[in-house]
Amino acid sequence: MSILVVGSVALDTIKTPFGREKDVLGGSATYFSISAGLFGCVRLVAVVGNDFPKRYVSFLKKKGIDVRGLAVKTGKTFRWEGEYGWDFADPRTISTRLNVFSDFDPVIPEEYKKSEYVFLANIDPELQMKVLGQMTRPKFVACDTMNYWIENKRKHLTRLLGKIDLFFLNESEAKELTGCSSIIRAARGILKMGPKRIIIKKGEHGSLLFSENSVFSTPAFLLESICDPTGAGDTFAGGVMGYLSTQKTVNDKSIKRAIAYGGVMATFAVEDFSLMRLASVKKTDIKKRFENFRRLTSF
Amino acid sequence: MSILVVGSVALDTIKTPFGREKDVLGGSATYFSISAGLFGCVRLVAVVGNDFPKRYVSFLKKKGIDVRGLAVKTGKTFRWEGEYGWDFADPRTISTRLNVFSDFDPVIPEEYKKSEYVFLANIDPELQMKVLGQMTRPKFVACDTMNYWIENKRKHLTRLLGKIDLFFLNESEAKELTGCSSIIRAARGILKMGPKRIIIKKGEHGSLLFSENSVFSTPAFLLESICDPTGAGDTFAGGVMGYLSTQKTVNDKSIKRAIAYGGVMATFAVEDFSLMRLASVKKTDIKKRFENFRRLTSF
Repeated sequence: MSILVVGSVALDTIKTPFGREKDVLGGSATYFSISAGLFGCVRLVAVVGNDFPKRYVSFLKKKGIDVRGLAVKTGKTFRWEGEYGWDFADPRTISTRLNVFSDFDPVIPEEYKKSEYVFLANIDPELQMKVLGQMTRPKFVACDTMNYWIENKRKHLTRLLGKIDLFFLNESEAKELTGCSSIIRAARGILKMGPKRIIIKKGEHGSLLFSENSVFSTPAFLLESICDPTGAGDTFAGGVMGYLSTQKTVNDKSIKRAIAYGGVMATFAVEDFSLMRLASVKKTDIKKRFENFRRLTSF
Repeated sequence: MSILVVGSVALDTIKTPFGREKDVLGGSATYFSISAGLFGCVRLVAVVGNDFPKRYVSFLKKKGIDVRGLAVKTGKTFRWEGEYGWDFADPRTISTRLNVFSDFDPVIPEEYKKSEYVFLANIDPELQMKVLGQMTRPKFVACDTMNYWIENKRKHLTRLLGKIDLFFLNESEAKELTGCSSIIRAARGILKMGPKRIIIKKGEHGSLLFSENSVFSTPAFLLESICDPTGAGDTFAGGVMGYLSTQKTVNDKSIKRAIAYGGVMATFAVEDFSLMRLASVKKTDIKKRFENFRRLTSF
């Protein structure tokens, strides 16, 4: 089944202890697309400037991503520059230049409106809601957010959450959104805001899934070395949504597996700069790592 | 099979956001004993002062712990006072008075020397080695340590590690011992020091098991509320060793289950002050929580 993603396509400049890469392909919708695209048919809605390299568009197409929803506007593409330390925790943002992304007002192409799975990547919750308004009864809607929207668009965000099947957020966002220091209480509080399920991402410590009646905890897959964690969260979401789109129903069993697949996809994302490792991942690589992951965690 | 533990029996004064308890039963060997004692026969070697309340000795006996190795010396019992904040991370130590524990020189009673399982709780590695020297070919030896010994007795510690089957330590200790910021590299470095297996404890994020050929990752069991995390690590070790003592062999399968049982025991420990919750745990409670834990983590 088809998956619609609405988010950013960006040019990232990334510095890590292993080097620096300038104006490489990035953005939440990009990472999500490449990851989910390894499972199903992905339709991308985003905006870039007329400086956006054609080779990146070709790359997305070659990977099977439907880019009819990728608008090209006069101006510059969204650029982000960040630096990671040895601990690979939250990066230090050196600069964020929204450029054409600052006026992003997603228009969903007619041929996308019946997409069954929808992922609203981290953009203004008002825009996320506008996207939903354009869709024809999607089967399953997920979204991401960030601290900025929690602080500045709380009302819009909580209104959106009532329409969400799966809400992705990280630990600090969960605590900030609810004012609870206990993660389990924070999760309960967020579920009351309306989403059917939430996934709290804990980076190298894995993730937690909460629904009204269940909790599921997964550790992260251990990696010998991390090169660039940019996009790990969106790649994770791409794996989760991609796997779900191949399943008949979304239930506890399928979503637990989806989370494991999401974790596996994230490990590929961080092994090299930008999408360099993800670009070469094959279905057999995913299957193999998934089986390793299961062996590593079952008792 | 029998399990010998050598460590501290203490009187703790603990402050948490939920209250303050003065001079309550504590100490690494105490938590370990009560936890492991729910699986097998535990023999305790420790020292207390003549101020140590008789009711605590009765409690240990009632729980089936063999206390013939608990020496009573003239003087005061080891006292520790600490305070936890809302995040329940590492406590702030208010005072540590070693008292009779400062001259602790463990003498293993004749009838303990053939114990098959040995747990050397966090004491001076020189003393840990002396204990081993008194034992008659134990089947399986585990030890714990702390940053103080890593900093001040590194040589003795690394010498000891060559004789250890299972080394328990936490994440920051693993990094400090090896100077590696990557946990997987730190683990490799420690394995080279000699222990057959190591368990890296990550508190609320679970634990990692490393051996030459395998890695195993377990998330922590999620708790609605934590009351007092004191002793969680020793209770965890008690569950691991206790479960292993019921198994014919220590292999990847049994040790993975042992770690899950350790995690389950730790959740009981933190639910109330001191050993108050652990004291009332029944085998059926353990089994039930273990099954929940498995359901919570398998995919």
